[in-house]
Amino acid sequence: MCKAMSNFPSRLLEGYQTFMSGRYADERDRYRQLAETGQEPHTLVISCCDSRAAPETIFDCGPGELFVVRNVANLVPPYEPDDNLHATSAALEFAVQALKIREILVMGHGRCGGIKAALDPDATPLSPGDFIGNWVKLLKPAAQQIQDSQLMTGGERQIALERISIRNSMANLRTFPCVKILEEQGKLRIHGAWFDISSGELWVMDSKTGDFFRPETAEA
Amino acid sequence: MCKAMSNFPSRLLEGYQTFMSGRYADERDRYRQLAETGQEPHTLVISCCDSRAAPETIFDCGPGELFVVRNVANLVPPYEPDDNLHATSAALEFAVQALKIREILVMGHGRCGGIKAALDPDATPLSPGDFIGNWVKLLKPAAQQIQDSQLMTGGERQIALERISIRNSMANLRTFPCVKILEEQGKLRIHGAWFDISSGELWVMDSKTGDFFRPETAEA
Amino acid sequence: MCKAMSNFPSRLLEGYQTFMSGRYADERDRYRQLAETGQEPHTLVISCCDSRAAPETIFDCGPGELFVVRNVANLVPPYEPDDNLHATSAALEFAVQALKIREILVMGHGRCGGIKAALDPDATPLSPGDFIGNWVKLLKPAAQQIQDSQLMTGGERQIALERISIRNSMANLRTFPCVKILEEQGKLRIHGAWFDISSGELWVMDSKTGDFFRPETAEA
Amino acid sequence: MCKAMSNFPSRLLEGYQTFMSGRYADERDRYRQLAETGQEPHTLVISCCDSRAAPETIFDCGPGELFVVRNVANLVPPYEPDDNLHATSAALEFAVQALKIREILVMGHGRCGGIKAALDPDATPLSPGDFIGNWVKLLKPAAQQIQDSQLMTGGERQIALERISIRNSMANLRTFPCVKILEEQGKLRIHGAWFDISSGELWVMDSKTGDFFRPETAEA
Repeated sequence: MCKAMSNFPSRLLEGYQTFMSGRYADERDRYRQLAETGQEPHTLVISCCDSRAAPETIFDCGPGELFVVRNVANLVPPYEPDDNLHATSAALEFAVQALKIREILVMGHGRCGGIKAALDPDATPLSPGDFIGNWVKLLKPAAQQIQDSQLMTGGERQIALERISIRNSMANLRTFPCVKILEEQGKLRIHGAWFDISSGELWVMDSKTGDFFRPETAEA
Repeated sequence: MCKAMSNFPSRLLEGYQTFMSGRYADERDRYRQLAETGQEPHTLVISCCDSRAAPETIFDCGPGELFVVRNVANLVPPYEPDDNLHATSAALEFAVQALKIREILVMGHGRCGGIKAALDPDATPLSPGDFIGNWVKLLKPAAQQIQDSQLMTGGERQIALERISIRNSMANLRTFPCVKILEEQGKLRIHGAWFDISSGELWVMDSKTGDFFRPETAEA
Repeated sequence: MCKAMSNFPSRLLEGYQTFMSGRYADERDRYRQLAETGQEPHTLVISCCDSRAAPETIFDCGPGELFVVRNVANLVPPYEPDDNLHATSAALEFAVQALKIREILVMGHGRCGGIKAALDPDATPLSPGDFIGNWVKLLKPAAQQIQDSQLMTGGERQIALERISIRNSMANLRTFPCVKILEEQGKLRIHGAWFDISSGELWVMDSKTGDFFRPETAEA
Repeated sequence: MCKAMSNFPSRLLEGYQTFMSGRYADERDRYRQLAETGQEPHTLVISCCDSRAAPETIFDCGPGELFVVRNVANLVPPYEPDDNLHATSAALEFAVQALKIREILVMGHGRCGGIKAALDPDATPLSPGDFIGNWVKLLKPAAQQIQDSQLMTGGERQIALERISIRNSMANLRTFPCVKILEEQGKLRIHGAWFDISSGELWVMDSKTGDFFRPETAEA
């Protein structure tokens, strides 16, 4: 291997080789077609950066299916039309207005580091910029309330906030006019889900009650 | 099936079933272990929301390997330690300071809608908030320069800006003190790559020249 | 060996021997026939003098197939019907009007010294005549535009100008009335290609967009 | 095959495939090395565009060996340091001053169309630009003299002028100061050759007498 290449992580190059000879080889026509016609993903997923919670893996989705935003703790901030940089809002706007995506999924997961940080009363900034501190402020009121529920265990508080946060983000999605209007017209749907990274179980949110349940246990 | 479930996209439920009986079944122990010990991903990847450019797919990576931030056009904003919400900065801080990740990859791709928007002289806001417009302002100076190269085709300008943007984001990573210091000490490495969503080819950035090349053509 | 011969480069004499006992021996009848009937090459190729970019080699063509003009940077100057010496124009005229060739290929290549000279802001004349300086003036406006794209790497600017130059030369071909008329009548075709002298890859120009692509990646 | 590709001549694409799987595959390392280090061709060849007289073929030379200028009738114009476009002069200057080539070969051939045009008293312009007419004016005095030699056959006059022309071009090479000086210092050599496109015979010029002879008949 020549010098220029030797820096690139070999794990990634090996994985890429596997992709090319396996999955890409199988789906070559699909990749080409998607490049020609453009992408038409059916779902926008807001999920966490966590290495154990990749939506393409969990939902066995291939190229062209999911438009994915990933940030710490899969948060959706409320609508703030100022001049600042809003990564998640920009992605949402692009998904709904440009790509005409009509299904949105907010997917949280267990043992989320961001949620843990929000719940930690002694949290110290990870760097002078304290970006995580400022980021999880989106959860501050909820985190405060949960922290006070001392009869719940640490693990129960963690899961509780993970799920409250999902519902929060879904509510924040509705502060975006384009989302709100389309949903009211019955043209767009918002879903919530929570993935147990240990058991692999997927819990889906009941839109009427806000409760999370496992679909296979609910089958009639 | 019960009523509550009928809302959740069936495509996602089917995909999840495939995941559970396939991949999860094969890697069950790994998922459990990762939940117990916590994640130790080896690489932070900043990539695009685009449905055709999922890093786990392209690098054939499994749970626990990649900590992934996905935003429109895989941009890294410069270091701005104020009180605002900075999704990408928060993820970067968490990755480097909390998870101690020491390899960072900025991965761009061909036919990127965000880059296209940055290059469009007649771009009109997708919504009153114009989040995409404000988001791609990160590329405005570069986009302006490239737009002036009218002897290049539209396709050539697109690829040029996709690659300039990757180099830009890598430079912005270095405005974060924690990243800069660790890199200077030789403890952290920053990589750039560009994925051709049509041919599946991966172009890696030569750290000396900034040029993108395909590793397989450079093998000695 | 006699004195007169000792001057002629031995490498060329050896190569000629190999040709006579190999290729010429195989194609003897063809050489004789072509001498009798005259040449009827199917394609006029304008390519560079560069020792790594010989069209007969790259396209595995034998005697009688290609009518080849080679100059520095494979340039075609615009139509200038004055009394001066116009080597490339004379060859073009002969190819189209005398030999009735109806396919023209302008073939550029990577790492072209002539293009590099055109991009060099500090270029000093190679000799008082500065023939190269005057020759690459054909590219001056384009070179200036590309030089202004300082966010592109030197390698990216080089490739950009190599390809712009091919499109330029194709446009200049169309300033020759005989070419223009025949093309408009659908009787003559003009093609562009760019040869990567390192990887051996051939990039062909898409006549609709002007973009260069590799045919093998475009196969349906 | 997709639409964009269907225009490119299939003969060239097939030939290219043969090149890639044959010759390029065999010489891959050499192509890569030449790209890295740059070209160091040993000989500058000025030869004719004629499809039957490709120097790489005749001298069995591979990539990196020959820097080749090809124009109609392999003419070298005299040194004219004005501001005009001088394709052959530019290539000569680049070869000698930039690439430091120290062997120059002017190679003519039998049945040359350009020489024939020079000898044709009734030649009419091939196009209003009469580029060939102006180009072969370089041979006008010599052509005039040969035309007057009516006791020679048409074929003999043709060969006579082909060889006079080679000597002419060699003399014109010496009007270039850089060439003249290096030759006088014994650092550069100029050769002439004439290729019989029917028999494949190579005739080399004796530098003392100007006669053309076949090396194999001169072996001691």
